[in-house]
Amino acid sequence: MKPRLPSEAFAQLFLEARTHNGWRDEPAPDALLEEAVEIAKWGPTSANCSPLRIVFVRSGEAKARLAPALAPGNLDKTMAAPATAILGYDIEFYEKLPRLFPAADARSWFAGNPDLIEETAFRNGTLQAAYLILALRALGLDTGPMSGFDKAVVDREFFPDGKTKSNFLVNIGYGDPARLHPRGPRLSFEEMARII
Amino acid sequence: MKPRLPSEAFAQLFLEARTHNGWRDEPAPDALLEEAVEIAKWGPTSANCSPLRIVFVRSGEAKARLAPALAPGNLDKTMAAPATAILGYDIEFYEKLPRLFPAADARSWFAGNPDLIEETAFRNGTLQAAYLILALRALGLDTGPMSGFDKAVVDREFFPDGKTKSNFLVNIGYGDPARLHPRGPRLSFEEMARII
Repeated sequence: MKPRLPSEAFAQLFLEARTHNGWRDEPAPDALLEEAVEIAKWGPTSANCSPLRIVFVRSGEAKARLAPALAPGNLDKTMAAPATAILGYDIEFYEKLPRLFPAADARSWFAGNPDLIEETAFRNGTLQAAYLILALRALGLDTGPMSGFDKAVVDREFFPDGKTKSNFLVNIGYGDPARLHPRGPRLSFEEMARII
Repeated sequence: MKPRLPSEAFAQLFLEARTHNGWRDEPAPDALLEEAVEIAKWGPTSANCSPLRIVFVRSGEAKARLAPALAPGNLDKTMAAPATAILGYDIEFYEKLPRLFPAADARSWFAGNPDLIEETAFRNGTLQAAYLILALRALGLDTGPMSGFDKAVVDREFFPDGKTKSNFLVNIGYGDPARLHPRGPRLSFEEMARII
């Protein structure tokens, strides 16, 4: 049996990690963004369907294209972040299943079933988004996930072929602890779960 | 800036972790299931909405209630697993926002908007489900997530008040490496992401 990870892993991934709104003047290196994707992609998805798609918005020109889509409360912090990941999901993910899941004709489970495609892409693209957040934290980076943006504007601007739908955004960099909001409480175990 | 976690953390969480289908004759202790929830709940959700709800199915009697909902290919391995988590999301999560997100009247963003409630609960309940899978792995446990089951049957049997919707299932225990399937390939960075 495997041992539990050392306590600093729980602290860095979950217990002391915070959603950041202010950023130190340090870049989020391309090599770390790439490494986070290369790590997170090994997390499990249904039939290995792997629908997550990502645009890392880094340049000033790309940030300017993103700005009109942002809710007012997300604008300044996003423009200041070293990078902003647009996390989306591929609604044609099933075309890659003959390669990703060769054990069965998994493509046929989805082709022509748009409700199942959407549900599967959204669920598994979101699982992979969570893996990415935790991979970034494992690499020492901080994150600031956000849902407040206009998806239609983002999709038109960054996914113009219509095959990828945006899910949510994540600012990435090294956070400024001085600009953290107070941490929100969480539910108790009993409010969330039971063992039967 | 925080350092990267030691390499064994990347191995145990992502690079060497596998989806298991066969289980060793070792229990998944209640204390570890509870600890995984207590860790995972600190992962980020939108406005701290925290919609994940969990039923850990452990007893023979509870397993027997779950069995009729399972796809045939998921039946035997689930009956043999030390525990099976039914992961759901609370579609009345917004009633807890005055406590979880006191900084704004976040309840009013959702009340009376069923499409936004469903989307938010599904997205954030799925993010929390991924955090739970990785928290279980961090504690040394193995997991086997599954989407193949009848949600209507599970919801009627385990969430009879109609306020929680099932999302997916996760078998939990100590996996038998001899019963692993070959690992599926993953997409390349370039197929998943770009930096602009």
